[in-house]
Amino acid sequence: MELCILCPELPYPFRHIHFYERGYTMAEKFISERNLTFLLYEMFDVESLLSYPRYADHSREVFDMVMDTAMKMGKDLFKPVFSEMDKNPPEYVDGKVKVHPIVRTIMQECGSGGWIGATFDYEHGGQQLPEMVGMMIPTAIFAAANYSASIYHGLTTGAALLIASFCPKEIKDLYLPKMMAGQWQGTMALTEPQAGSSLTDITTTAELTEESYYRIRGQKIFISAGDHDCAENIIHLALARIKGAPAGIKGISLFLIPKMRIGSGGELVFNDVNCAGIYHKLGYRGGPITQLAFGESGDCRGWLVGEANRGLSYMFLMMNGARIDVGLGAASISSAAYYASLEYAKERPQGRRLSSKDPLSPQVPIIEHPDIRRMLLFQKAVVEGSLSLLMQCSYYHDMEKVSEGEQKEDYNLLLELLTPVAKTYPSEMGILACSQGLQILGGYGYCDEFPLEQYYRDVRIHPIHEGTTGIQGMDLLSRKMTMKKGRAGLLYLAEVRKTIQAAQTDGGLKPFAHDLEKALSQLEGVTAHLIGIAMKGDPELFLADATLYLELFGIIAIAWQWLLQAVTANKALKKGSHPSGDMNFYTGKIYACRYFYGYELPKIEGLIKRLMNSDGLTVEMKNEYFEE
Amino acid sequence: MELCILCPELPYPFRHIHFYERGYTMAEKFISERNLTFLLYEMFDVESLLSYPRYADHSREVFDMVMDTAMKMGKDLFKPVFSEMDKNPPEYVDGKVKVHPIVRTIMQECGSGGWIGATFDYEHGGQQLPEMVGMMIPTAIFAAANYSASIYHGLTTGAALLIASFCPKEIKDLYLPKMMAGQWQGTMALTEPQAGSSLTDITTTAELTEESYYRIRGQKIFISAGDHDCAENIIHLALARIKGAPAGIKGISLFLIPKMRIGSGGELVFNDVNCAGIYHKLGYRGGPITQLAFGESGDCRGWLVGEANRGLSYMFLMMNGARIDVGLGAASISSAAYYASLEYAKERPQGRRLSSKDPLSPQVPIIEHPDIRRMLLFQKAVVEGSLSLLMQCSYYHDMEKVSEGEQKEDYNLLLELLTPVAKTYPSEMGILACSQGLQILGGYGYCDEFPLEQYYRDVRIHPIHEGTTGIQGMDLLSRKMTMKKGRAGLLYLAEVRKTIQAAQTDGGLKPFAHDLEKALSQLEGVTAHLIGIAMKGDPELFLADATLYLELFGIIAIAWQWLLQAVTANKALKKGSHPSGDMNFYTGKIYACRYFYGYELPKIEGLIKRLMNSDGLTVEMKNEYFEE
Repeated sequence: MELCILCPELPYPFRHIHFYERGYTMAEKFISERNLTFLLYEMFDVESLLSYPRYADHSREVFDMVMDTAMKMGKDLFKPVFSEMDKNPPEYVDGKVKVHPIVRTIMQECGSGGWIGATFDYEHGGQQLPEMVGMMIPTAIFAAANYSASIYHGLTTGAALLIASFCPKEIKDLYLPKMMAGQWQGTMALTEPQAGSSLTDITTTAELTEESYYRIRGQKIFISAGDHDCAENIIHLALARIKGAPAGIKGISLFLIPKMRIGSGGELVFNDVNCAGIYHKLGYRGGPITQLAFGESGDCRGWLVGEANRGLSYMFLMMNGARIDVGLGAASISSAAYYASLEYAKERPQGRRLSSKDPLSPQVPIIEHPDIRRMLLFQKAVVEGSLSLLMQCSYYHDMEKVSEGEQKEDYNLLLELLTPVAKTYPSEMGILACSQGLQILGGYGYCDEFPLEQYYRDVRIHPIHEGTTGIQGMDLLSRKMTMKKGRAGLLYLAEVRKTIQAAQTDGGLKPFAHDLEKALSQLEGVTAHLIGIAMKGDPELFLADATLYLELFGIIAIAWQWLLQAVTANKALKKGSHPSGDMNFYTGKIYACRYFYGYELPKIEGLIKRLMNSDGLTVEMKNEYFEE
Repeated sequence: MELCILCPELPYPFRHIHFYERGYTMAEKFISERNLTFLLYEMFDVESLLSYPRYADHSREVFDMVMDTAMKMGKDLFKPVFSEMDKNPPEYVDGKVKVHPIVRTIMQECGSGGWIGATFDYEHGGQQLPEMVGMMIPTAIFAAANYSASIYHGLTTGAALLIASFCPKEIKDLYLPKMMAGQWQGTMALTEPQAGSSLTDITTTAELTEESYYRIRGQKIFISAGDHDCAENIIHLALARIKGAPAGIKGISLFLIPKMRIGSGGELVFNDVNCAGIYHKLGYRGGPITQLAFGESGDCRGWLVGEANRGLSYMFLMMNGARIDVGLGAASISSAAYYASLEYAKERPQGRRLSSKDPLSPQVPIIEHPDIRRMLLFQKAVVEGSLSLLMQCSYYHDMEKVSEGEQKEDYNLLLELLTPVAKTYPSEMGILACSQGLQILGGYGYCDEFPLEQYYRDVRIHPIHEGTTGIQGMDLLSRKMTMKKGRAGLLYLAEVRKTIQAAQTDGGLKPFAHDLEKALSQLEGVTAHLIGIAMKGDPELFLADATLYLELFGIIAIAWQWLLQAVTANKALKKGSHPSGDMNFYTGKIYACRYFYGYELPKIEGLIKRLMNSDGLTVEMKNEYFEE
């Protein structure tokens, strides 16, 4: 890539601007494979899953192969078009959406390589890989290499999972093979213009016909990959209201609505699904976000998924996965931003150590400045802490699949509880991490000759899509913390305390174990305080600062994951001789843990002070006080 | 502006997507004139300046006229091209930089209207307006209306001030009239590719000739408005090193280097200043940021400004003003983002109050949700708190001009101390404020059919240009807090305590006075702790967390300004009858102050914990621990 903006024939000394303009754009590393293997094998012992019948066909070798192949695809297929897809966003011409042609290749590769159904049951054409391997690894790698390019097959996975889980065999047989092969695109279609986050206000209608299908009429907005020219068909999993259904969320059903329905002879027939436009976005530009019109000509057919009026609970099967994906996408973009700024910091000479200010001494790389190291440690702490929490969620997901009875329910509760946290912490903190990455490059960070500004734009979508941070906060506090009489919260506390216990026997980590225990008690105190307000029947005051409660919860959850990583790293260090690379890797984990407890965990003090206040300021504030 | 992305012929119900797509883009308000008059007349009593001879010719009527005219220019001249300039950034073609043609009109209007030299002495063609009126008001209004468009004449002001202050009469006569008239562009040219923030490493050379000028050779990068086709000439105030000068910053001189020098007959002669390229930026796209090559053909002439080897101290006269401008630019962009999201929040119906969840009841505007109000209050607190601190700085600047002896020096010390704070708090928090504004619009905030994403991009430059946040932190802690044996810090504490005292007699504000006094004591404790480390001779450990020290300092400074605003507002409220608009305005101030003390000030707890830690983590962290 020729990025120099100076004309090449300039004589010395002008030529050396070249060096600076060009030298630092070569960042190739976007994710640490070493860190992913650390999470998989050392932290969450994915090999232990091999003892369950579901995973009995697999082996460490299979898992390693998944990693190798995904890394290869990330480097060779996704990364090379990272900037190109951003600079050539989808176009909407004559009612059709044109995307970068690489999307067709990616869909095909993901189909033929088995990536779309990697975690699905064999009976649905899947490979029955654990979520930790089949979902986390490729999603993280592809998203770090090129987030926009990674969403197409990922959305197809989510839609296919709903079909596999809730549709009758004849529908599965019609749709799943094409979707799993990457020929047909899947979507989830919830949002409507007048409803937005308020799903209860969905008005898309479904009218039962005398055939097996419903007649659909309505619009959806902000539908990712809702139409494009690199798939032969688009399969929408859409929420709609059957005529006569109860008002509110109890009257919402889930429908399969293809763009092209399958005619009696197997041919594809236009199903009156029109793309009415696409959005022009700050970032995430390689993915088309569409407006859809179902049934403009009265000929849009949809097939009910599962039972009538239970659509929202089905959709949440997909939505929960999508929320984890969003967190993972944000952590992965932040990972790429981290390595790009790390590389710059190691190569860019500027200034001197404060202890040697001789202007005649050579300049040092900026990584030598403590303030730059602090920013890099912040990025590392956010990225690796987020990935660790996401892998923890994935572990619970896998354990839920292989468990039964109460244990199965418990794993599900843990996953449910942590989903808003694993969606939000990486998303909100990812913005700040990419911003710090940009800052490390100074003026160059602000220029599109370097990749940081794109990461900064791409990552900004994550606190919005699949439920805003505000929605996640209310979900955590009002639903997840109270469901099953608060059982999820209790299970979570026990999980964290297991880690605290493990750390207490490790002299170097004992102070962190102590800090985390204290933080946990404070979280219990805040929770009790807020639940007390709820019990007094004041839902607005109860939830007024739910977003900050989520922030508090998130910091503590990541502190937990950092302690767990440090325990694992310290164990490895104590085992003795390692190659120097591994020594540095494990020691880096200890330092990042120290960073988190030194710089990030203290942020809970201010949050706790606020959350214990509950003066109702935002409840009683009148709109007219914002005037002038 | 036609912003709907749906084809207009769609039948009902599709048509009503139109409404949502189009309805909320009309945000017209970008700054509160009421708030500016509150700051000018009620907070900082600008009329009291009229008693000094320097300002004796002026009157309240003149100040009001400045405000009216600036508001009119903001609305009619700057705002209409806000999005257009972003979408049509400068182009670099055949060595020339083409900018939006409105720039010529703006420069001319700012010239003929007297805006460029508004605060200059009469003898330099200025209007001798107070900084609070002549600088703060138009800069805030123009930057809020269209930041990119506001920089051209502002940079000219800065360069002209250096010429007026340090050049001999013949140079002033040659350059000032054209610059003040907006015909010639001024710049400040510090940064070089190999130096960046490390000014000591500047290598541009100046060689004395037998004439009155020096021969200049070297390159500068990231020079704002360093070349464009809407000015007849570009006047660079550039740092360079005279051959044989001492190494380091003690050998840096300041030069006036025109793009076109003035020939013996008054004609313009090309001065061998070439624009080597422009940067393509995340935001702030209406302003050309250039790379310059001086003396490629050996024929670039520069004129020494002031004495040799004292360039850096002269430049800092301009730089200090520029840093205040950067803070003001960030606060102003955040102001526009605040009003755009406020308008959306008032108009966008979605969801219901938590106390009435009947799905058949009408939806409420999202401003009814406490979480949205919290985000709006955050924006209001950042914007109005920042503007207040900036006006405080401007007040010190004005008082410095009219004072003498020790008093003059004291005002200067206060201004110097607060400059890194007034640059950084608005810039760093402006990013978060614009981000919250974007978040309020949900998916629409991420789309360029709405203005929030542009504000989010535009504001991101501010923690970078004119000295990064890291540089500001070191400036505050290592230079400003220690100069004159810490006198600036002592003066500052006394200023804040004056406000605390005033608030203690006001029952409603007493708790805030108490909180601020406590915060101030904590700041004293942290400062003493860090100075103690410096005294032990460990400069790296001393400054390792200087950025966080600046963050702590900034929050407390804004808390001070909010208390000052609340004291002023409460006094007005107690005076009795007001029009309802004013009642709401003053009450809004009280609520925003409550917000700041309830939500923002507690953030110092975590920072103090960190700053008192000083475990040297970022000093001792080894680079190789970042490997893998």
